[in-house]
Amino acid sequence: MDHGAADHCGDSGSVERHSHHSEAVKGNLTSRLNRIEGQIRGIKAMIEKDTYCDDVLNQIAAVQSALNSVGKLLLEGHMKSCVIERIQAGEMEVVDELLVTVKKLMK
Amino acid sequence: MDHGAADHCGDSGSVERHSHHSEAVKGNLTSRLNRIEGQIRGIKAMIEKDTYCDDVLNQIAAVQSALNSVGKLLLEGHMKSCVIERIQAGEMEVVDELLVTVKKLMK
Amino acid sequence: MDHGAADHCGDSGSVERHSHHSEAVKGNLTSRLNRIEGQIRGIKAMIEKDTYCDDVLNQIAAVQSALNSVGKLLLEGHMKSCVIERIQAGEMEVVDELLVTVKKLMK
Amino acid sequence: MDHGAADHCGDSGSVERHSHHSEAVKGNLTSRLNRIEGQIRGIKAMIEKDTYCDDVLNQIAAVQSALNSVGKLLLEGHMKSCVIERIQAGEMEVVDELLVTVKKLMK
Repeated sequence: MDHGAADHCGDSGSVERHSHHSEAVKGNLTSRLNRIEGQIRGIKAMIEKDTYCDDVLNQIAAVQSALNSVGKLLLEGHMKSCVIERIQAGEMEVVDELLVTVKKLMK
Repeated sequence: MDHGAADHCGDSGSVERHSHHSEAVKGNLTSRLNRIEGQIRGIKAMIEKDTYCDDVLNQIAAVQSALNSVGKLLLEGHMKSCVIERIQAGEMEVVDELLVTVKKLMK
Repeated sequence: MDHGAADHCGDSGSVERHSHHSEAVKGNLTSRLNRIEGQIRGIKAMIEKDTYCDDVLNQIAAVQSALNSVGKLLLEGHMKSCVIERIQAGEMEVVDELLVTVKKLMK
Repeated sequence: MDHGAADHCGDSGSVERHSHHSEAVKGNLTSRLNRIEGQIRGIKAMIEKDTYCDDVLNQIAAVQSALNSVGKLLLEGHMKSCVIERIQAGEMEVVDELLVTVKKLMK
C-alpha cells in the first residue's frame, strides 16, 4: 500500500496527508516545465549551430524567468498548505526548512 | 551554401567569420545543458509524485544556479570574441546589444 | 504606557504583542545598516572623484550582498515570530503578505 | 592643475584621459544615491521603532531595486567609454576586469 503521494506535508512516518497541489495546479506546473524543457533543448541546438551568443543569453534569461515563476507557484502552494498545517500541528521545524529554501531563491 | 556557423559575430550580410566557441567549450556547454534538461525532467517527475515542495524548490534553486553558470560561460566567450572583434571593427552597436543582455541577467 | 512599539505582529487594533527582535538582533541589524549607509556615502564620493567604474560597481555589488544579508536576518526573525504567531491565531492573511514580500526578494 | 579626476580609464601611470561621466550623469547618480542613503536611514528608524517586518522587507527590496538601477547606469557609462577605449587601445585585460564585475552583479 502506498501512501507516498498523499504524504508530502508529513514527517517520514506519517501517512494519509493530502497532496496540496490540485490537478489544475499540477497541470499548470507541468506545462510550464515542458515549455522550459523545450527551451533548454532549443538552447542546446543554438549552441550546436553557433548562434550569436547574445541571442543565446537572451534565451537563458527567459528560462531563468520562467523557472522563477515555477518557483513562486510552488512556494505559494507550499506555504498555503504544508507550512500552515505543520505550524498548526506544532512542527515548527517547517519554518527552518522554509528559511533555508527561501534564502537559496533570494537575490 | 551555408556560412551560418562561422558567421555569428557579424551583421546579417557578413560571411566567413569564425565561430568563437571551441569544440571544448561547446562540449562543456552541451553537457551542462544536458544535465539541466535532466534536472527539469526530474522536477516534473517530482511534481507528478507530489514530492514535498521544499525538495522541489531546492531542485529549482539548483537549476537556476546551473543555468547561471552556463550564462557566465557564454558571456565570457562572447565578450572575449565578438565584443572585442566588433569594437575593433568600429561596430559600436555591439555594446548596446550587450548592455540589453547583461541587464536581463542582472539581479 | 506605550505598547505600540511592541505590537508589530498584530492588526491595527491589537495591543500587548511583544516585539520579535531582541536587543541583540536589533543591534546587529543597526550596525549592519550603519555600515551600508557608510558604503553608500563612499560610493557617492567615488562618483564625485571619477573613480574607475569597475571599482564603483564592485562596491555596489558589495552593498547588494550586505543588504541581502539584512533581508535574510529580518525574514528569519519575521517567520520565527509573527508568521508563526499569526498562523496560530488563525490570521492566514499573514501568508499572503509574506508571499508578496518574498517574491520581491526572489531572483 | 589636476588631471587625476579625468583619468579613470587609464593605467596608473597615464594622464589626461577624460572622465566618462558627464555632469548630467553624475548629478543623476548622486541624487539616486542620496535617495538610497535616505532609504537606508529610514530602514534603521523602522527597526528602531519595531515596524512590522514585512514593511521593512519591502523597503529593502525597494533599495535593492534602486541600487540595481545605479549599477546599470554605471555599467552603461563604463562600457560606452572605458571598455571601448581600452579595447581600441589594445588593453584587452579590460574585458577580464569587466567579466569579474558583471558576474558579481548577475543573478
